[in-house]
Amino acid sequence: MAVYTEVEPGELRRFLAAYDLGELVALVGIREGVENTNFRLETTLGRFILTIYEKRVDPADLPFFLGLMLHLAEHGLPCPLPVRGRDGAMLRRLAGKPAAIVSFLEGKSVRRIEPVHCAAVGGALASLHLAGRGFPLRRPNALGPEGWRRLLEATGARADEVAPGLAQELAAELETLERRWPGGLPAGVIHADLFPDNVFFEGERVSGLIDFYFACDDLLAYDLAICLNAWCFESDGAFNVTKARALLVGYEARRALLPEEIEALPILARGAALRFLATRLYDWLNRVPGALVKPKDPLEYLAKLRFHRSVGGPAAYGLG
Amino acid sequence: MAVYTEVEPGELRRFLAAYDLGELVALVGIREGVENTNFRLETTLGRFILTIYEKRVDPADLPFFLGLMLHLAEHGLPCPLPVRGRDGAMLRRLAGKPAAIVSFLEGKSVRRIEPVHCAAVGGALASLHLAGRGFPLRRPNALGPEGWRRLLEATGARADEVAPGLAQELAAELETLERRWPGGLPAGVIHADLFPDNVFFEGERVSGLIDFYFACDDLLAYDLAICLNAWCFESDGAFNVTKARALLVGYEARRALLPEEIEALPILARGAALRFLATRLYDWLNRVPGALVKPKDPLEYLAKLRFHRSVGGPAAYGLG
Repeated sequence: MAVYTEVEPGELRRFLAAYDLGELVALVGIREGVENTNFRLETTLGRFILTIYEKRVDPADLPFFLGLMLHLAEHGLPCPLPVRGRDGAMLRRLAGKPAAIVSFLEGKSVRRIEPVHCAAVGGALASLHLAGRGFPLRRPNALGPEGWRRLLEATGARADEVAPGLAQELAAELETLERRWPGGLPAGVIHADLFPDNVFFEGERVSGLIDFYFACDDLLAYDLAICLNAWCFESDGAFNVTKARALLVGYEARRALLPEEIEALPILARGAALRFLATRLYDWLNRVPGALVKPKDPLEYLAKLRFHRSVGGPAAYGLG
Repeated sequence: MAVYTEVEPGELRRFLAAYDLGELVALVGIREGVENTNFRLETTLGRFILTIYEKRVDPADLPFFLGLMLHLAEHGLPCPLPVRGRDGAMLRRLAGKPAAIVSFLEGKSVRRIEPVHCAAVGGALASLHLAGRGFPLRRPNALGPEGWRRLLEATGARADEVAPGLAQELAAELETLERRWPGGLPAGVIHADLFPDNVFFEGERVSGLIDFYFACDDLLAYDLAICLNAWCFESDGAFNVTKARALLVGYEARRALLPEEIEALPILARGAALRFLATRLYDWLNRVPGALVKPKDPLEYLAKLRFHRSVGGPAAYGLG
């Protein structure tokens, strides 16, 4: 669970007075999500999500995140629509922290992932990339190759506490990725964290894409590589090529990949695996005893990284 | 039914290519609605409403209507969100006519109106009035007192074909309304057509407000008077004061009425009844034999007009 910030009733009332959302019916903390504090907000006008931004989010990035959600929602993407207050602002303060209200989306994240879900996610990701093209703001990816280096330098030799030899393996991997990281591929707005938790379904249809707080500008195919990692491995660690194929075919139904993007998939997938391995490793080594959020296992992504390193080419993902 | 315009598959494909909504799954004509042609549009990205604007809508008004929906949706109101194309535009052409895509809203209009629905509609209407305050565009009400005069002059003595003596009764009523129409009451954006067809519910909660194609600037309390006419009479013509009280109390829970607004309710309700009587009378007398849309009975609103003329004061609506 992750409700880091409690809200006093009087303060909540004053906060809501800045909006035209009617009267408060209920405010319930949401357990999902580890970055921010989310509440399900019900007013006489409807259901909303109230988010209080915790210290992991840089307040300077919030106009990018909220502006992007607004832009994508206005282009038909099923993502949260930020709610403006009477003054027109989408962002204000609650409990001394930045806070925003966004629309509530129907649907549920899927527990048992089938290829049909992967196909739908691929299509939704392509639509996100297409709809993001006209968005005017820019945000470099803080968790690209330079960010990986910073994270791995911060963990250093302590990586071996998690698995013997890990520090050296990751240093070598980083060196390879920096050398072979593709340049010149199509770039634009990417979600950068489109895990199953962040996609809602109604049946087999995607009804919601949430959590845009890692969104940034980067290679579009890198976003797809993140999804290959997040959606196409079984819980026993096996790579499911049927799911990967469904993801890529679903994506290509809306946006055709260039030959260079397809060729780069294995190296992009290695980079994506290293990105999540690096942040999980950092969180694991810097966990606070007794903290509410249990850190995620970094070794899951070591296994994924090794898989992508082992593949002979993009055909391993079911293409061609 | 009201599908006035057929769309060729090739033309629809070219139209949808201006958006990032994925591939077409289905396009189904919607029978409800008499002003425009509406389709339920399903794409791989979700469900939408495609509207083709027919000749009753002045294309010059469309930026007001679409801009207002966007403004209200961004302020948390459950109203359709216009979808922007790749070029950012919300409005383009299809089948030689103006057309737009808006988001699909869940819920159903209510068949059997209970006081709890009236209270919810009152609250939603107040929220609309509050959220509309920051909207920068203006549109005079073409169906205010001047519009009634134009309509009644166009029908003239032929009103008596519908009911003997009607022409004279309406002329006298119009003269009274013009003389006693209140000035100086709070004004702003009003929906001006919030009939039960245009409100969706999920249970007892309003989940959607649609059809903003009569929206304009006018007295806020006049919008409430339209709802008194549309929501608070039984099918046998009896006025249901319990529903009226629920509507007004629901409204006042979000926006308190001034004493002058309450005092003006009977005259505003007479004006609202005359407005719908005048348009129905015009449509009835100018109906095209064999037309698909059956004109609505003007005499329903004559009975409502006479009721409001008979009341002693605002207490008749359940207040104070």
